[in-house]
Amino acid sequence: MNENPLHYQTIGELSRQIHSGELSPVRLTEHLLDRIEALNGGLNAFCLVMRERALAEAKAAEMAIDAGSSLGPLHGIPYALKDLCDVKGYATKAGSPLMVDNIAAEDATIVRRLARAGMILLGKTNLVQFAYGGVGINHHDGTPRNPWNGETHCVPGGSSSGSGVSVAAGMAPMAIGTDTGGSVRIPAALNGTVGLKTTVGRVSTAGVFPLSFSLDSIGPLTRSVQDAAWTYHAMHGPDPRDALTAQAARHDPMPALHAGVRGLRLAFAETVFFDGVDEEVAAAVRACGRIFEEQGARVLSIPFAEAEEAQALNPRGLVIAAEAYAFHQERMERDFDRIDPIVAHRMKAGASVTAGEYIRLIRSWEGLRGRMLESLRDVDALLVPVTMIPAAPLDEIDRSIESYSEHNLKYLRNTAIGNILNLCGLSLPCGFTAKGMPIGLMIYGKPWQEDVVLRVGQAYEQATDWHKRHPELTWAGDPE
Amino acid sequence: MNENPLHYQTIGELSRQIHSGELSPVRLTEHLLDRIEALNGGLNAFCLVMRERALAEAKAAEMAIDAGSSLGPLHGIPYALKDLCDVKGYATKAGSPLMVDNIAAEDATIVRRLARAGMILLGKTNLVQFAYGGVGINHHDGTPRNPWNGETHCVPGGSSSGSGVSVAAGMAPMAIGTDTGGSVRIPAALNGTVGLKTTVGRVSTAGVFPLSFSLDSIGPLTRSVQDAAWTYHAMHGPDPRDALTAQAARHDPMPALHAGVRGLRLAFAETVFFDGVDEEVAAAVRACGRIFEEQGARVLSIPFAEAEEAQALNPRGLVIAAEAYAFHQERMERDFDRIDPIVAHRMKAGASVTAGEYIRLIRSWEGLRGRMLESLRDVDALLVPVTMIPAAPLDEIDRSIESYSEHNLKYLRNTAIGNILNLCGLSLPCGFTAKGMPIGLMIYGKPWQEDVVLRVGQAYEQATDWHKRHPELTWAGDPE
Repeated sequence: MNENPLHYQTIGELSRQIHSGELSPVRLTEHLLDRIEALNGGLNAFCLVMRERALAEAKAAEMAIDAGSSLGPLHGIPYALKDLCDVKGYATKAGSPLMVDNIAAEDATIVRRLARAGMILLGKTNLVQFAYGGVGINHHDGTPRNPWNGETHCVPGGSSSGSGVSVAAGMAPMAIGTDTGGSVRIPAALNGTVGLKTTVGRVSTAGVFPLSFSLDSIGPLTRSVQDAAWTYHAMHGPDPRDALTAQAARHDPMPALHAGVRGLRLAFAETVFFDGVDEEVAAAVRACGRIFEEQGARVLSIPFAEAEEAQALNPRGLVIAAEAYAFHQERMERDFDRIDPIVAHRMKAGASVTAGEYIRLIRSWEGLRGRMLESLRDVDALLVPVTMIPAAPLDEIDRSIESYSEHNLKYLRNTAIGNILNLCGLSLPCGFTAKGMPIGLMIYGKPWQEDVVLRVGQAYEQATDWHKRHPELTWAGDPE
Repeated sequence: MNENPLHYQTIGELSRQIHSGELSPVRLTEHLLDRIEALNGGLNAFCLVMRERALAEAKAAEMAIDAGSSLGPLHGIPYALKDLCDVKGYATKAGSPLMVDNIAAEDATIVRRLARAGMILLGKTNLVQFAYGGVGINHHDGTPRNPWNGETHCVPGGSSSGSGVSVAAGMAPMAIGTDTGGSVRIPAALNGTVGLKTTVGRVSTAGVFPLSFSLDSIGPLTRSVQDAAWTYHAMHGPDPRDALTAQAARHDPMPALHAGVRGLRLAFAETVFFDGVDEEVAAAVRACGRIFEEQGARVLSIPFAEAEEAQALNPRGLVIAAEAYAFHQERMERDFDRIDPIVAHRMKAGASVTAGEYIRLIRSWEGLRGRMLESLRDVDALLVPVTMIPAAPLDEIDRSIESYSEHNLKYLRNTAIGNILNLCGLSLPCGFTAKGMPIGLMIYGKPWQEDVVLRVGQAYEQATDWHKRHPELTWAGDPE
């Protein structure tokens, strides 16, 4: 048994072998497809595996690379896609059996861009219905199982639940997630992967089923910061199909990951983010300060009152509820009882929001975002826990709507603040609980400063070993 | 008596004389201030005249130009500003006595930019309360009088009523207006001036009192297309204080006004725009086709179904009502009876709009705007009447809320369609009714194509004499 078997290698490692001719994209793809077949029954990460298509893409990639026509580091690398994103000819089910006939007429822009970078689509991953929830529960398609606990079915985090599980369990080196209130970062944290939440407008959402058009963002879950940076770079930039991307209006160079953190000012944000946080989680995140200091960063603590304001200006998540309800109203009226109750329950709150309330909230965010930039003038990035608690047992959470709501808040609170403020953010493994569940550090950057959070994340990753641990999966059918 | 006295000259004519040393900015400013003093009692265009400030600015401009430091064609040219725009230290009253204490802490961005171009602020002009209405009536500050009728008080069009009257009556060669449903173009048409409605995001609205943040735009009213182009060019471009201007994200070169229309495809848009239009108005607008053909343009007729869709997707103006209500809710609840009833009446409709209705409308506009670009693929600009009827007697309109609403629609219908579609548009004098009231041609351009509408307008202006007529104002106290 290899110390770091193929399915746990990073894109960086795989890419080097593919481009040196040591590794065949077809063999890699077959290996992952076989692994998905072996493990998916127990983990339920994928809702659709595209075996033939993936092998055909792998074959094409292999031939191109052999012929000396490499498209770059992602060429020949397989990935998994949250089933919220359109792939031409396949249903985008958005986690709901109601959507089986929602066949996509075109690829989502990100799917096109990843194809153009030479990536191979393995299949589509499970999610919370309509991407609305941070725990990862889906009562119709089933809740993917967190791979880090063989005894108890612990939650995977949501809404990109299958994406988190697929990367952590070695079924794909990268999976695409979407993040409206934390849906990339929470599953990344709970499954011990890297997860990048991009600034709204940075990555096109064209062809991605909407939850909240004001807040929806797209990002990768990966096994390394470098892998996240490559995927991000392949996806980002203006798209005529998504008006919000006009704000970015430029292609950025590949972030300078290896610039280090010397001289950067990194701040623990004290207001809200550490309140009520599990002790093990808080301790692991606090311990990161030392790592950054050793590398020459200035680590400080700031109050960051805007976090509290962001909470106050997002009462009961009404903006997301209103936008989701506006989109789903017909479905809610016709099929209320056929929507996952934990989703229908929250979406219903959007029905009674007035235009006035909605507009005032949306507008107030603009002012808040401006004040925030002032208050972060002397800070390069913030350090906070991704979630308040680690992955908890599904049964414990899913026994009542009250228990669900309480846990959902514990997973979403810290991440949702970043969506309201339109921060970008990187979730990174930074430790494990005594019971062996992963803990996530969130590096928050200012809007459009993905390069900063990636650079800070890279420095942390280089100095620590957390990302090298992988779950023991013999209980789930892992042959190794 | 000069055939074209100072106060009826264009910025182009004035600028040439100023820069050749023939005309002193101080003398010009004094002349206009004196004229405002003589005429404003009868016309009620200005609510505030800044005599001392204007003379000081004129003096400074004169010294700079004399010293050879000209800032360009607008240097030393006086202008009037709709009292919706902030000037530091002065109240922005927005047409309402409730706002007398609303002292501006800073200049609006456009005020700064016009100052940087060397322009001289004469004072602030009257408007419809909170800029909400197309007729030009204000029951508290009084309704500015249309200068083209000495016998009957005819309406000036709104909401930039005082701006239209001030330019038409020779009180200022340029006045700033704002346009959310037609508020630049309607007073331009009814007063026989040029008026430019810019694409949302093209000119910063920072420091301008909002009506509807989704649709508010800013533009100049002038006596020539060249003057509108210069003013536009001085104001446009990205502004960190207005997030919407990031869409434009570039400074455009000065539009090539004299490129002519040879080879351009100009289309009468038949759906909606000509329905129920006054015969004299329709005939004058149709006659423009011949003028453009003679200059080598291809003039056609197209259905343009998107105009009807735009109307359907703006039921009872609910989006503007909702956005206005969201902004004014506290005032509406506290001071409902102290708001102009024709405004309070419409704004109240915004109270009962749900977030769902609002979001669906706003989102539906995006799709419509995309389809529109397809349907205009082979067309450079549209030709339609600005208003359905010319300026009518105030008494006739203001006898009941029903009569007001009916007339308001006749003034706003064709212009508001352009706001929903986010077109840019130029209003140009194109004839007079038998009773001597001006008629306006609207040249609609695609979003961000201000250069095209200005170029088409310039060609029309060069070929016609309508812009050379000025109202006879002895009845209002004109000494000449």
